[in-house]
Amino acid sequence: MKIHIVKIGGHIINDPKLLNISIQSFCKLEGYKIFIHGGGEKANNVMDRMGIPKKMIRGRRVTDKKTLEVVVMIYAGYINKNIVSLLQGYNCNALGLSGADGNCIKSFFRSKEKNIDYGYVGDIDIKNINIHFIKLLLKNDLVPVLCPITHNGYGTLLNTNADTISSHIAIALSNDNNQVDLHLCFEKKGVLRNINNPKSFLKKINFDLFQKMKQDHTIFNGMIPKLENAFFAFQNGVKKVSIGHPHYLNEIHNNTVLCL
Amino acid sequence: MKIHIVKIGGHIINDPKLLNISIQSFCKLEGYKIFIHGGGEKANNVMDRMGIPKKMIRGRRVTDKKTLEVVVMIYAGYINKNIVSLLQGYNCNALGLSGADGNCIKSFFRSKEKNIDYGYVGDIDIKNINIHFIKLLLKNDLVPVLCPITHNGYGTLLNTNADTISSHIAIALSNDNNQVDLHLCFEKKGVLRNINNPKSFLKKINFDLFQKMKQDHTIFNGMIPKLENAFFAFQNGVKKVSIGHPHYLNEIHNNTVLCL
Repeated sequence: MKIHIVKIGGHIINDPKLLNISIQSFCKLEGYKIFIHGGGEKANNVMDRMGIPKKMIRGRRVTDKKTLEVVVMIYAGYINKNIVSLLQGYNCNALGLSGADGNCIKSFFRSKEKNIDYGYVGDIDIKNINIHFIKLLLKNDLVPVLCPITHNGYGTLLNTNADTISSHIAIALSNDNNQVDLHLCFEKKGVLRNINNPKSFLKKINFDLFQKMKQDHTIFNGMIPKLENAFFAFQNGVKKVSIGHPHYLNEIHNNTVLCL
Repeated sequence: MKIHIVKIGGHIINDPKLLNISIQSFCKLEGYKIFIHGGGEKANNVMDRMGIPKKMIRGRRVTDKKTLEVVVMIYAGYINKNIVSLLQGYNCNALGLSGADGNCIKSFFRSKEKNIDYGYVGDIDIKNINIHFIKLLLKNDLVPVLCPITHNGYGTLLNTNADTISSHIAIALSNDNNQVDLHLCFEKKGVLRNINNPKSFLKKINFDLFQKMKQDHTIFNGMIPKLENAFFAFQNGVKKVSIGHPHYLNEIHNNTVLCL
C-alpha cells in the first residue's frame, strides 16, 4: 500500500486559519492517509485557567497526574474531535484515535534520566505499533487521526511526543512493505538557511548537512528534535520524508526533502 | 448478530469504584458488545475551575460555545479515553468514539422550543446511525465505546444525551435484524417502588405501570427520561431492555426488565 502520513505540529494547532489550510491540503491527498497532530498551546491555557501549576524539574517539563488529565482532555478530546469533525465536513471519513483505542500504540513509562522522573510520559517501540489495526482502518476507507496520547496496556494513559509517534508509525508501516510518504508540517516553508527569510529554504538536506547546521546553530531549538525524528524515520526504511508548510502538502518540490 | 449494548450513566461516571465494577462486569459479557457512557459531574467541575458560567434559560441548560468546548474535552477526551484504557487493561479491545469518528452518529441542531435556543445540542434520527461502521468494528473484535458527543456533518460537534444515543443505536441495530440486549445501568438496583429501599425493585415493568408510577410520583426526576428512552427502544423493536446496577449486568433477574 502507498500511504501518506501527515504530522501537523508547531503552532498550526493554535491557529484556526493554518489548521484549516492543513485540513484542506490533507483532504486533497489521494489514496491511503493518516493524520497525526501535536498538542499546541491549549493545554497550557487550560492549566492556567484551572490553576494547575506547570511542574518542571531542572528545566524539563514533567507530566504529573493533573497535567496528564489536562493533556488527555485537550489532545484526545478537544483537538482530536475538532479535527475529526472538520475532516468529516470535507467528506473525509476521519476516525480519531489515542494509542489506547484499538490498542493502536502501546507505550512504556519513560525511564528516569539522571534521577528525573518525567511522570506520565510514554516512550514507544516500533514493535508496539498495531499496524494490523491501522491497515484494517485504511482498507475500509477510514482515515486515522492520531493524537499524542498512548497507553501502557495496564489501564494508564501516557503523554507521548507526536513527532515520535509519526516516525514510529512511518517505520512500522515501511517495515511491513508499504510505500510511506512522511510529511512533517509546521508554520515554516521547510528547513531554512536563514530563519528570517522564507526564500532561504533548502530543497534537500542530508544527514551530514543537518549535523553541520546544528553545529553552526543555523538549526536550533525545536527544529533539532523534529529533524532527528525525520532522519530516524529516513534511516530506518521510510523512503520519502519531507518537512514544510501544509499549504504545499501537495507540492513536494516546495518542501525540504531528506536525501542521502 | 447478538449484541449487548450497555449504557453507563447516573453517578457511576463520578465514582471510580462503581465505574470499575461496571467495566469488569462489561468485560464478562460474551460476544459482541458496545459501551456507551454519559457525562457525569466532571464537566461542571472543570467549568467552575475555568470560571465558565453555566448558562440556563428558563431553568433549561444551554450548551453555548464555551460549554461545548468543555463537554467535548471531558466526554470525548477525559472520560472516554480513561474508560478505553481501563478496558484495554482487562484485554477488552475497546475503541473510543464520538459521533464524528467514522461518521458514526450524525445529528442536527435541536430546534428552538418556545423560543429557547439550546445552543450546541444535537438531536438524532435512527437513519443517521452508521450501523455499517459499527458492525465493521464488531466483526473485527473491536468494542465501540461511545461518548455523548455527535456531529452535524458540516464540521460542528454537538452535545447529545447518552440515553438517547443508546436507544437509537439499539433500535438501528434491531431494525438490521440483530438480536439486541439493551442494558441501562445506574447506581440503583432498578426501578424501585420505594426509592429508599433497594429491595423494593421491580423485576418487570410495562408501559401502563410506568405511566401509573409517573402519575403517582413513584417515578420522578431523571428516571422519567431514562424510562421514556427505554420504552422508546422496547416499542421500536429492541427485544430485551433492562435497567439496573452494573454489578448485576450478568444476572438479568436482578434487574428491572421491560415487558409487554
